Amino acid sequence: MIDLLALCAFNAAYAQAIDADELERWPGFFTEDCVYRITHHENEREGLPAGLVYADSRAMLEDRIAALREANIYERQRYRHLLGLPVLQAAADDGATACTPFMVARIMATGETTLFATGEYRDRLVRQDGRLLLAERVAVCDSTVTDTLLALPL
Amino acid sequence: MIDLLALCAFNAAYAQAIDADELERWPGFFTEDCVYRITHHENEREGLPAGLVYADSRAMLEDRIAALREANIYERQRYRHLLGLPVLQAAADDGATACTPFMVARIMATGETTLFATGEYRDRLVRQDGRLLLAERVAVCDSTVTDTLLALPL
Amino acid sequence: MIDLLALCAFNAAYAQAIDADELERWPGFFTEDCVYRITHHENEREGLPAGLVYADSRAMLEDRIAALREANIYERQRYRHLLGLPVLQAAADDGATACTPFMVARIMATGETTLFATGEYRDRLVRQDGRLLLAERVAVCDSTVTDTLLALPL
Repeated sequence: MIDLLALCAFNAAYAQAIDADELERWPGFFTEDCVYRITHHENEREGLPAGLVYADSRAMLEDRIAALREANIYERQRYRHLLGLPVLQAAADDGATACTPFMVARIMATGETTLFATGEYRDRLVRQDGRLLLAERVAVCDSTVTDTLLALPL
Repeated sequence: MIDLLALCAFNAAYAQAIDADELERWPGFFTEDCVYRITHHENEREGLPAGLVYADSRAMLEDRIAALREANIYERQRYRHLLGLPVLQAAADDGATACTPFMVARIMATGETTLFATGEYRDRLVRQDGRLLLAERVAVCDSTVTDTLLALPL
Repeated sequence: MIDLLALCAFNAAYAQAIDADELERWPGFFTEDCVYRITHHENEREGLPAGLVYADSRAMLEDRIAALREANIYERQRYRHLLGLPVLQAAADDGATACTPFMVARIMATGETTLFATGEYRDRLVRQDGRLLLAERVAVCDSTVTDTLLALPL
């Protein structure tokens, strides 16, 4: 049975990979045919499929990281994720669905620190070869106007 | 015995009900004769009973939500709670006292996101019919000047 | 075996001692010959030993608190720590190494609340006489420019 502690440990490792600038490890938290989206609560409530970011495979996530590295965006900003405890909606031996709140701070090279994004992950996880992986992560932002600033993964 | 994980799961569900705009579920986290207060650390230290918000029954919490719905305040702002791990002060089979730190971001319809309130819940929980419920939750804010802005539950 | 929940409970108690202005309890979370440093990610990456704060014994931490009390700095500001779940890197019966993300808000006497510092604790914990203690805590800040503002412990 996938439990709360296992999800917490998974999420902590996920956030650390991004915040420690080990972005190349990020796609490894997903299944090969995963869905990853960033959207906001209004779009999501109205069932609008187009979010701020959309990927439907791990390969697309890898492309995204490669593009970020070329753009060298990490020189200019860092993220810090603080994740809440998940609300476990369904759990079995081989999968789970859960919602996890997030706050993400952005730290510019100037030192300026702002609360960049808040929201909720809506996740579907599966266990493959003994490891938890995200089959789907939808990052639903609370604000409707973060799009132009998005760069690093949430 | 009520343990840390049970409290974490309870708090995660509590925060989600508010942040997902399912405010009608909020009073259901309390006992019928509960106490719910919002105050700040200076008032609390001096033992001043009058806080920013005071309710001494679940019915008063229901009234508060009804009033918020009429005022339609949720159209203009959202909250995002990030809760820390509780410090468990006492625990038995049928009850517990605990302190839990919180940060609450407020997201305006314009997209503006601010760190709205920080503080600590001081809680007394009981188990009734197998469910954890708040017999008392005092939200002690760190700032002494959030009163005029308070709208949604903390 | 030191586990995730034990670390969470330890960190929650650590943060509460600071945020509740019970600073005299803070050195008690460390071993007698501990290392405590505050630095930022650039210094740490380049292996520069000089951080923003450095102490290599519990006695130095006690001196620091005494100095803060004399300066009466707590009258003018409060902190609120929100800690994420630890990433447990190694664990045994008598020790563990872990990383834990933090966000710290600062609340001024005027009520102004800002996101003051974000970063990651890099910890080495030991169990002594049945209690977890920090043999080393390095608070690695994400921003390179928080130095002049530092006052309370992170």
